[in-house]
Amino acid sequence: MSTQRRHDREFVRTFFTSPTAVEGEDDSAKMIRSAAQLRGMQAPDVWVPDNEDATAPSMRDEGADNIVEVVSEHGADFPGEIHPRIVWHRDSPGTRYRCFQHLLQIADPEKGAIEHIDGFVIPEVGGIDDWKKADEFITIVENEYGLEEGSLAMSVIVESAAAELAMGDLREEMGKPDNNLERLFLLVDGEVDYTKDMRAMTPTGGLPPWAELRHNTSRGASAAGLIAVDGPYDDIRDVEGYNERMEDNRAKGMIGIWSLTPGQVVEANKAPLPPETGRWLLDTGDGTTELESEDGTQFYDGERIGLDETETGYSLRVGGDERDLGEDELREELLDMTEYVPSMDDIVDSMEEFEAAKEAGTGAISMTQSATIVIDGIEIDISKDRMWDEATYQAAMTPVSLFQDVYENRPDQREALAELYGENVVERAMNVG
Amino acid sequence: MSTQRRHDREFVRTFFTSPTAVEGEDDSAKMIRSAAQLRGMQAPDVWVPDNEDATAPSMRDEGADNIVEVVSEHGADFPGEIHPRIVWHRDSPGTRYRCFQHLLQIADPEKGAIEHIDGFVIPEVGGIDDWKKADEFITIVENEYGLEEGSLAMSVIVESAAAELAMGDLREEMGKPDNNLERLFLLVDGEVDYTKDMRAMTPTGGLPPWAELRHNTSRGASAAGLIAVDGPYDDIRDVEGYNERMEDNRAKGMIGIWSLTPGQVVEANKAPLPPETGRWLLDTGDGTTELESEDGTQFYDGERIGLDETETGYSLRVGGDERDLGEDELREELLDMTEYVPSMDDIVDSMEEFEAAKEAGTGAISMTQSATIVIDGIEIDISKDRMWDEATYQAAMTPVSLFQDVYENRPDQREALAELYGENVVERAMNVG
Amino acid sequence: MSTQRRHDREFVRTFFTSPTAVEGEDDSAKMIRSAAQLRGMQAPDVWVPDNEDATAPSMRDEGADNIVEVVSEHGADFPGEIHPRIVWHRDSPGTRYRCFQHLLQIADPEKGAIEHIDGFVIPEVGGIDDWKKADEFITIVENEYGLEEGSLAMSVIVESAAAELAMGDLREEMGKPDNNLERLFLLVDGEVDYTKDMRAMTPTGGLPPWAELRHNTSRGASAAGLIAVDGPYDDIRDVEGYNERMEDNRAKGMIGIWSLTPGQVVEANKAPLPPETGRWLLDTGDGTTELESEDGTQFYDGERIGLDETETGYSLRVGGDERDLGEDELREELLDMTEYVPSMDDIVDSMEEFEAAKEAGTGAISMTQSATIVIDGIEIDISKDRMWDEATYQAAMTPVSLFQDVYENRPDQREALAELYGENVVERAMNVG
Repeated sequence: MSTQRRHDREFVRTFFTSPTAVEGEDDSAKMIRSAAQLRGMQAPDVWVPDNEDATAPSMRDEGADNIVEVVSEHGADFPGEIHPRIVWHRDSPGTRYRCFQHLLQIADPEKGAIEHIDGFVIPEVGGIDDWKKADEFITIVENEYGLEEGSLAMSVIVESAAAELAMGDLREEMGKPDNNLERLFLLVDGEVDYTKDMRAMTPTGGLPPWAELRHNTSRGASAAGLIAVDGPYDDIRDVEGYNERMEDNRAKGMIGIWSLTPGQVVEANKAPLPPETGRWLLDTGDGTTELESEDGTQFYDGERIGLDETETGYSLRVGGDERDLGEDELREELLDMTEYVPSMDDIVDSMEEFEAAKEAGTGAISMTQSATIVIDGIEIDISKDRMWDEATYQAAMTPVSLFQDVYENRPDQREALAELYGENVVERAMNVG
Repeated sequence: MSTQRRHDREFVRTFFTSPTAVEGEDDSAKMIRSAAQLRGMQAPDVWVPDNEDATAPSMRDEGADNIVEVVSEHGADFPGEIHPRIVWHRDSPGTRYRCFQHLLQIADPEKGAIEHIDGFVIPEVGGIDDWKKADEFITIVENEYGLEEGSLAMSVIVESAAAELAMGDLREEMGKPDNNLERLFLLVDGEVDYTKDMRAMTPTGGLPPWAELRHNTSRGASAAGLIAVDGPYDDIRDVEGYNERMEDNRAKGMIGIWSLTPGQVVEANKAPLPPETGRWLLDTGDGTTELESEDGTQFYDGERIGLDETETGYSLRVGGDERDLGEDELREELLDMTEYVPSMDDIVDSMEEFEAAKEAGTGAISMTQSATIVIDGIEIDISKDRMWDEATYQAAMTPVSLFQDVYENRPDQREALAELYGENVVERAMNVG
Repeated sequence: MSTQRRHDREFVRTFFTSPTAVEGEDDSAKMIRSAAQLRGMQAPDVWVPDNEDATAPSMRDEGADNIVEVVSEHGADFPGEIHPRIVWHRDSPGTRYRCFQHLLQIADPEKGAIEHIDGFVIPEVGGIDDWKKADEFITIVENEYGLEEGSLAMSVIVESAAAELAMGDLREEMGKPDNNLERLFLLVDGEVDYTKDMRAMTPTGGLPPWAELRHNTSRGASAAGLIAVDGPYDDIRDVEGYNERMEDNRAKGMIGIWSLTPGQVVEANKAPLPPETGRWLLDTGDGTTELESEDGTQFYDGERIGLDETETGYSLRVGGDERDLGEDELREELLDMTEYVPSMDDIVDSMEEFEAAKEAGTGAISMTQSATIVIDGIEIDISKDRMWDEATYQAAMTPVSLFQDVYENRPDQREALAELYGENVVERAMNVG
């Protein structure tokens, strides 16, 4: 593929930032020293010692030193990639010069950190020509220190309208002889500063949803072989909200997200992987509710939907609407109202079955999912058919490819994955596709 | 207009694909042989003998032969346009070469099919330069066979982020001397493969809505004088869902949609035409419901809204909120809560009235729509005024232009249209604008 | 900043159009003559004598004369900027020539109007090269009349797909030596004609929401240092709908909106300014409702949510769902369900507090908002913390910058602002940032 991803990781679930230097502590590197020792589900795919917004401006020279110290000591053992964020601003040549200085400071091979650093994160980029300035500094530093040209990845924070537009040009710009933009790795949305750049306002001061920005970031990443990552979710107590945001992101093709705490890292490492057990959803007309599964039977225990037997069949109530239905009509109706969320096991099953059918010369097969649903004590058996063809198979491959990418690149998470899914499912998931 | 549409059809409602070669049948061309004989509302505006995804890879050479055989026999009588889909992939030179071979195979004038073929559909295109490669093959084939340069239309399936971005460049690229991109006709979204290219995931495996893609496709079509078509709607049983999707598409300026069955063709041929009878909608606070019309009176029979007479006027209940209103306040409130969906007859009436007013020197007139609404047995007369000016008139022209385009280009549907609307409305609709 | 706004106003809340010549009146300039004398909250930030769609084609030469007459008389005293809209069409050279003639007619310094005119509004633009044609006419007119090159602003109505795409190129095009596009000022959406250009249709004939267009306009403005303005809201009786539209626009960074009447001007001048009093919102699961504030206590008086004391704590009902909660759990739950909309006073308080903390060397502080909430007679005290850092501060600056821009540029509104907020808050708001 011409738009193949050029880096070790095909997927990045988690982008975890830590302040590089904290004032008033005995050890100003305390935060990154502890982050560097995270392992397993608590360790992110990409760890970002953050020498920009998370660190006070006056502490950033010390922060650059801390990065060198901590990464040279712990970098070799860190299970994810390491991409420090350094300062940059499209509108400030002084900040850009400081970026260059920090690059020189951190990347010096004699200090022993750069061999463990996969790349750098450049915030506050503007138009594509501004991206090229940062790229050029990295090229000069690579040359100065005898590193292979293009070996240091560059990720950007998209937090201006100009940067949003630039993402539409990456595919064209990345091949040009006068830059090394092939080093680009992550496109990370930064909604707080983006909101400021767009001069957007909400009554409560909360962030707008920025659906179009996230679409454009995901599209830019897809067109240029890069990886899209959403910005921070500030309310760290709100696990449900964080998961909803991630589900919305995944529907846009944006699988990665910023994490502010190890707790968020755990959530975001797990969220894009298929669930260990399947579940049934019921559309109640004003939203979707999950049915409670007991011994393979699916119970609805809400009040919005009611079911009664009548002399001629059934009476189904949804909110205030009541309808008399025959048994087949009721089953048809419930088929329309239900959806099944497949487990990892289900997905692997279907893929194996489709692979076998394809080998036998069949291009499309029907997969069936059955359930007994209980509403107001009345049991109804339903059976959902779904046609699987090459396209369905390929689409189902996305979560499985993600799983395989994680399994291969994160040995420290294998135990957790085996515990979650069972050894057997893990092994089969590694063999499909 | 500089962005005038360059083809016979100004509108395409339906894009119907049929497998070109089916294994294990006496007649492998069975599916396209029967599709070629569809007529009237079952026949699509654009028929696509599908030699790509709908046909097994091993059957595609035979499929190309079948296209030639069936189109040379039935093409002259087919009421819509014929645009076979042939193989292509932005990432595979082998597939692109096969495209060229199939083009040479199908377009040979001695075989008698090409004279009935309006163009070709190219799937899996990437950036604009990839589109040009396909365009160039068609140009070479036109030249080789003595066909007029640019006479074969080219439609593309937009199923990659790169192709989505390319749609923003069409207007600039189409006039350039080194291509014949003026042959472009349809921009068709292919959401299944697009979802894969974007690496998007949903819990149930269903397709994301891709609102931004559809907007960008419609915009690209509008800016370049092309026609936008939405991708397949897989759940062929779900007629209501198909119609909801089409209504959402039309609000984006995307009037055409893929059809997988003759039943879907009938729905999609009818859906964008104005209804034969008007209807009133009531906003119930948690959605919109259609009032039941009996003898010109509009009845609400739901439970969410209630109306009572009181000593001083009325008590109106919406969900749990109850308010006391005088008669004028109630009428005002109901005006806010209701909307009228005009019929074809209504639209033509208003246009005729506006045309007369304009001729008499008036630039804006007020159109009134009255109704008697009954809630809980209480009758209220309301009267909605709408200002019509040149802009309203021009906007109302869209469905009427569509109707006129259909009437002119699809004589086989005239009978069905006359039956639907009555001869008189049809005749008047052909004369406005 | 490279993308600094180049004009006097950093913000435009209101874009108010008036017909330049009305037929059948003693004084055909009646409408603009009265508009020119609006003051205070009724006077828009940008007043647009509209010699295009609001004026009959046959009256437009007279309209151009009327602009000259009225603006030369009243322009000096008008408190907002004056930007007449003149004719233009991407597809009609005749209309474009007429634009040039009207420019020459209106801009003649001897007539005394141009010194009060800040720029012109060009409707119906197409691709970026079409924008340049209008820019060039203005350059020629400036040169012809000895006006400084680039001194006349140019605003455009975005009402075609081509113009929507052009907004993505402004940042790159505005510096080029062969144009004076730096004169660009407002990007104004024109949804009625845009709907026609996109060939979109809705059942009722109402306008589609065009969320993507508004995003792209706001983004184009932000990337090029311009100001985004939404199109007209036709239903002038519907004040609530107008305010909802504006709130939605502000979340996209589009702060300005078209106004069709002085009443709409008042609404739109006030809407983007922070409210004079804060308020609490409660998420009821099917929407958000405002709590009623009495003596600092917040009362919920709806029916959807219920609260009871139980032996072990509380029972909270939301719709049909009932849950038993301890006091801390209930407080946690209510924290999740509530949001606070800060007043201007609150915002200025928080900014002052953050500024003081920053000066003292602290980069982030916690702001607390407390309330007593009463549901079904039961009082619960809650306390919301919000972390403020540099980014929060900068984002909160947007409404305050807007306020400062208004205060500085609109002396005629100072009295109304002081009445709204009190002198003390106004003074403090002018001093933060």
